[in-house]
Amino acid sequence: MKLSLRELLRLIVITDKRLKPNVVQAVREALEGGATSIQLRLKESSTREMLEVGRFIRRLTANYGALYFVDDRLDVALATEADGVQLGPEDMPVSVAKELAPNLIIGASVYSLEEAVEAERDGAHFLGAGSVFPTPSKAGVRVLGVEGVSRVVRVVKIPVVAIGGIDKSNVKLVLSTGVTGIAVISAVMGAEDVKKATSELRKAVDEELRV
Amino acid sequence: MKLSLRELLRLIVITDKRLKPNVVQAVREALEGGATSIQLRLKESSTREMLEVGRFIRRLTANYGALYFVDDRLDVALATEADGVQLGPEDMPVSVAKELAPNLIIGASVYSLEEAVEAERDGAHFLGAGSVFPTPSKAGVRVLGVEGVSRVVRVVKIPVVAIGGIDKSNVKLVLSTGVTGIAVISAVMGAEDVKKATSELRKAVDEELRV
Repeated sequence: MKLSLRELLRLIVITDKRLKPNVVQAVREALEGGATSIQLRLKESSTREMLEVGRFIRRLTANYGALYFVDDRLDVALATEADGVQLGPEDMPVSVAKELAPNLIIGASVYSLEEAVEAERDGAHFLGAGSVFPTPSKAGVRVLGVEGVSRVVRVVKIPVVAIGGIDKSNVKLVLSTGVTGIAVISAVMGAEDVKKATSELRKAVDEELRV
Repeated sequence: MKLSLRELLRLIVITDKRLKPNVVQAVREALEGGATSIQLRLKESSTREMLEVGRFIRRLTANYGALYFVDDRLDVALATEADGVQLGPEDMPVSVAKELAPNLIIGASVYSLEEAVEAERDGAHFLGAGSVFPTPSKAGVRVLGVEGVSRVVRVVKIPVVAIGGIDKSNVKLVLSTGVTGIAVISAVMGAEDVKKATSELRKAVDEELRV
């Protein structure tokens, strides 16, 4: 059974080399736990290392029927045959990425309603909207809040994934905004048991979104 | 009069934001001084900033009839319509870049005869071979030496550009190896007068290569 994009955006797990230096192993455990998408984020690594890790993630996600996104780097996404790329305000503009890579799914990271509307207009396929809560993974990030995410969901037509400080204690509140799914770093990559942490979140998401 | 690739590789000036924070202004002065190619190297910047600076360099180099290369980042090269990309051992493999961007000129940075031979076999259009001398721009870089560069020139058929620690005091010695040209960072970007420093190097290169 092939899942829709919305279903595959239910639980995006983002890599964090500082929290889990063995990125491939952590991704494998997240997939075993039920991550529906993986986003490769390797800010400090060389391009060569990104390609090597990305190729592993490409194979793993394909085996699990999950999507594979790359943060920021369109070149890495193309070279490792990713399903998509996640672009924020400091990355390549959505319109440029769409022109260079018309077959990629483009997720836009937005931190305000204005940025959300603009990203949809530019042709993003979905939004990562946040930060819902302050988060240790990104110091100094703008906090959109639960109400802000809720407003984005009401205004745009494309799927919205909430990001930023989400864990099992607040996931129900977050999902009550009407988002398609959640994206997490610390809640999974900061956990001792990656598989278990992912599986708990997946269960919570499935329960809420079934309604 | 349209210059050949070999002629346009005579003097590659590489940007350095630490030495000259106003990258665009420094590039303009280098072009006024006679740089035949500019290589954008912005390791610490966001992709968005690379694209903004890259678009300026694209226009400037076109106005001066110079080539515009991007270090490492194939996505930035494609998005800013660069002439080519410069790829080292930590970057995307030459063969992958050629597949993704068949129209770009691919320069391979090599630090040994083995790497030089491999890059030529993989389809690189030219080599940046070095480091000729120890250099402040890249700490811990492998030093190939004048004799090593000379050996690379004798073994490969594609153009070889020498890089690493080259300045007006040693440029004649470097050119005696038979290289097509030189690439510099510190000698130009570390100079108080970028235009003058470039112009002196260009004069030296033209004198030697005329013979």
